[in-house]
Amino acid sequence: MEALQGKAPSESAVESRFLLMPHEANPYGTAFGGVIVSWMDMVAGMAAQRHCGTVAVTAGMDSIAFKAPIRVGDHVVVKACVNYVSRTSMEVGVKVIRENPYTGEQVIATSAHLTFVALDAQREPTPVPPLTPETAEEQRRFANARIRALHRKELLKKMRPE
Amino acid sequence: MEALQGKAPSESAVESRFLLMPHEANPYGTAFGGVIVSWMDMVAGMAAQRHCGTVAVTAGMDSIAFKAPIRVGDHVVVKACVNYVSRTSMEVGVKVIRENPYTGEQVIATSAHLTFVALDAQREPTPVPPLTPETAEEQRRFANARIRALHRKELLKKMRPE
Amino acid sequence: MEALQGKAPSESAVESRFLLMPHEANPYGTAFGGVIVSWMDMVAGMAAQRHCGTVAVTAGMDSIAFKAPIRVGDHVVVKACVNYVSRTSMEVGVKVIRENPYTGEQVIATSAHLTFVALDAQREPTPVPPLTPETAEEQRRFANARIRALHRKELLKKMRPE
Amino acid sequence: MEALQGKAPSESAVESRFLLMPHEANPYGTAFGGVIVSWMDMVAGMAAQRHCGTVAVTAGMDSIAFKAPIRVGDHVVVKACVNYVSRTSMEVGVKVIRENPYTGEQVIATSAHLTFVALDAQREPTPVPPLTPETAEEQRRFANARIRALHRKELLKKMRPE
Amino acid sequence: MEALQGKAPSESAVESRFLLMPHEANPYGTAFGGVIVSWMDMVAGMAAQRHCGTVAVTAGMDSIAFKAPIRVGDHVVVKACVNYVSRTSMEVGVKVIRENPYTGEQVIATSAHLTFVALDAQREPTPVPPLTPETAEEQRRFANARIRALHRKELLKKMRPE
Amino acid sequence: MEALQGKAPSESAVESRFLLMPHEANPYGTAFGGVIVSWMDMVAGMAAQRHCGTVAVTAGMDSIAFKAPIRVGDHVVVKACVNYVSRTSMEVGVKVIRENPYTGEQVIATSAHLTFVALDAQREPTPVPPLTPETAEEQRRFANARIRALHRKELLKKMRPE
Repeated sequence: MEALQGKAPSESAVESRFLLMPHEANPYGTAFGGVIVSWMDMVAGMAAQRHCGTVAVTAGMDSIAFKAPIRVGDHVVVKACVNYVSRTSMEVGVKVIRENPYTGEQVIATSAHLTFVALDAQREPTPVPPLTPETAEEQRRFANARIRALHRKELLKKMRPE
Repeated sequence: MEALQGKAPSESAVESRFLLMPHEANPYGTAFGGVIVSWMDMVAGMAAQRHCGTVAVTAGMDSIAFKAPIRVGDHVVVKACVNYVSRTSMEVGVKVIRENPYTGEQVIATSAHLTFVALDAQREPTPVPPLTPETAEEQRRFANARIRALHRKELLKKMRPE
Repeated sequence: MEALQGKAPSESAVESRFLLMPHEANPYGTAFGGVIVSWMDMVAGMAAQRHCGTVAVTAGMDSIAFKAPIRVGDHVVVKACVNYVSRTSMEVGVKVIRENPYTGEQVIATSAHLTFVALDAQREPTPVPPLTPETAEEQRRFANARIRALHRKELLKKMRPE
Repeated sequence: MEALQGKAPSESAVESRFLLMPHEANPYGTAFGGVIVSWMDMVAGMAAQRHCGTVAVTAGMDSIAFKAPIRVGDHVVVKACVNYVSRTSMEVGVKVIRENPYTGEQVIATSAHLTFVALDAQREPTPVPPLTPETAEEQRRFANARIRALHRKELLKKMRPE
Repeated sequence: MEALQGKAPSESAVESRFLLMPHEANPYGTAFGGVIVSWMDMVAGMAAQRHCGTVAVTAGMDSIAFKAPIRVGDHVVVKACVNYVSRTSMEVGVKVIRENPYTGEQVIATSAHLTFVALDAQREPTPVPPLTPETAEEQRRFANARIRALHRKELLKKMRPE
Repeated sequence: MEALQGKAPSESAVESRFLLMPHEANPYGTAFGGVIVSWMDMVAGMAAQRHCGTVAVTAGMDSIAFKAPIRVGDHVVVKACVNYVSRTSMEVGVKVIRENPYTGEQVIATSAHLTFVALDAQREPTPVPPLTPETAEEQRRFANARIRALHRKELLKKMRPE
């Protein structure tokens, strides 16, 4: 089999934008966690598909941090970018930014790391193209994702088994 | 009252991206007109708000043309940009682009012109900043929007009254 | 092929009625444009299907005018009627009427013209029955729709090309 | 307090029409019970409000019978009419009719009796106008609703208490 | 054909729990009838499936009584249990309990009896296992369901035909 | 201020049950990540509220692992239980179990740890009751949650700063 050609994170990075609607708010007038996570899953999944060029399914989500509330009427920018790849999986970093609809002022509302697995036509895991981080920022993300991957393995060893 | 400062269309232009979900499809597996129009309304409304810096409500929609179907699983890019402004209203042009999730190939699926009115705190129409088209493309859109506005008035005169 | 028999607009006209729910309102307590357009698309599509007796898909929407806001709790009457047909397409006129739930007072909230194309089993455009407007009102609508169709062609000629 | 003037069932009767969408179907491709009941509740509630001219809330639903399945793409006609009133409550009869989108053939899919209570501005039960059934069909419905009301009381007496 | 083995109601009984969201409320801030009925249909259907081990479709709903309103933010417990079976159908009793999210105080908000029919792979009615009520409470429910079944037949005889 | 009385995890643990509907599935017929996470957020939030007796908002989500797909028609059991508390926050463990609707066979489909912060009437963080794990399983969860909390801090130190 021919080796897959490497791709830079910028080739698959995507951005989307929403307006928070009343039916997406909890009883306190701020966005539901579930709505925000659905948007992150959809936008990150599109970045993963653009990187691997096949079906990509969500395998995990990590370090989702709700840092600032989003209110009904706020503009919401969701940015996703592939940070790291292993043989058949991709870690995608997502940032959710709250934007004031009148002043344009931006605040990071939520961030997360999502993991996707590439699948072939038989729905079996299939190799993904290598990732070739180019900018300093892309290299920082790549390095941090590798640390997180190692750390996750160490953490599992420390857990008391069921 | 102080004159409002002009803004270029590029300062308020926005772009969003969706993945067409099964619950957004009609019985034939393609996107509902209503879903596409809801996305266009939301994205165009965000561009209008960014231009005027106040509440902006939809006053009309024109020349919505469904040119190519969007299927479940397609990526959908929605681009909105202010084409033209009158004293208190703004015409926003919207393009909906269908993108193949694996190859990235793009086709224009839908386009439309939406009109928004800027409202002040008393919910009364309020002046919007002038529009200063800069690029040749922005100037072409500005000119065409003016022709459409004149044409709409002429057309009304030709209609047989109720 | 046998000629299709003509049908009067009244044979396919339909009417529907909704109650505006909180999850269908924007942050200002009034109906979303997208919700209203979805209702118009659904109701007009049913009129088109009843006229042509085949699958009918939305090809375009024109002159959607939001004339009066609809509030949560209002009754909403949506009326659709085929105005005009060409060989394989139909123009359907839609009126959205806001009705006070307690007094029954009615106000026209939105109106629009939608165009549908009839499709056969291979999803190819297929001829529709001729329209035989009977009442003076049906004849007025037919005449105006023809003027709009001509006007649309003229307008396209005046637009500066991309 | 002045006596409320009687109203005929035909003065408040309403009819609505829907197209069954894929997201309203169960895993077998037919309408969810919950979707059908939501439509019946909305349409019957509008008839009750039109009769009493105040807020009307659902107090009960009885004899909901799912007689024929509704498939994705079917037209659905929902008819509601006040059958009977007591001092502060109204029984509304609802019929859900499945209509073939191409042939117009109709079949009764579901029927039910819903009970609404009229509320005043303090959210307390408030008297409703008397019902004046006029046609033979309206009188038959009135008589049957009275039999059901008596029967419901008898049935409660026969139940083994908790 | 081999006789089906009896099952106690406790073997198929299920319980679910929801938090009432703003988009599930009517204009008065309380749960829509349609939302509550959808939950009851889903939870009762799961109990029916667990009893019969085949597809089970809703055939009817009876004596739905809305006893206390549920407000946005309330916890909602839905309990379903097979009360009675005939050859191919099952009556499932459902209770909807409103729970104060902070104090845990519980109130019965809604109750109903739903009837499901078991279907085989050809979508034809198929026999269900006998029900073997064990506790006094299960026997009380079984006896009451039988009285209701008889009563329904008597009531139909008293109705004036259309 | 009086010390808050400790509570065992079993006092606030909750369980819910859903049936996966077609509109909750992705284009491959399996549950959307976003739908599953919304359910986990809702059910875990109810457990947190029952422990603290005040408003509880989602602060983070960690180690969400999608282990087995859920298909349309599957029963889904969601179990949540407070694992660990700090002064004003609670870690809630959630398990999502896929259940075969006919055989009752169960498989763990998804698991996660969610963190909630208790808020007082001024929407400021407020102390939560101590957690008193009683069973061996509750103590195992408590110990593991403490290890995770320490590990998260260590991990942050190792990350290359932006």
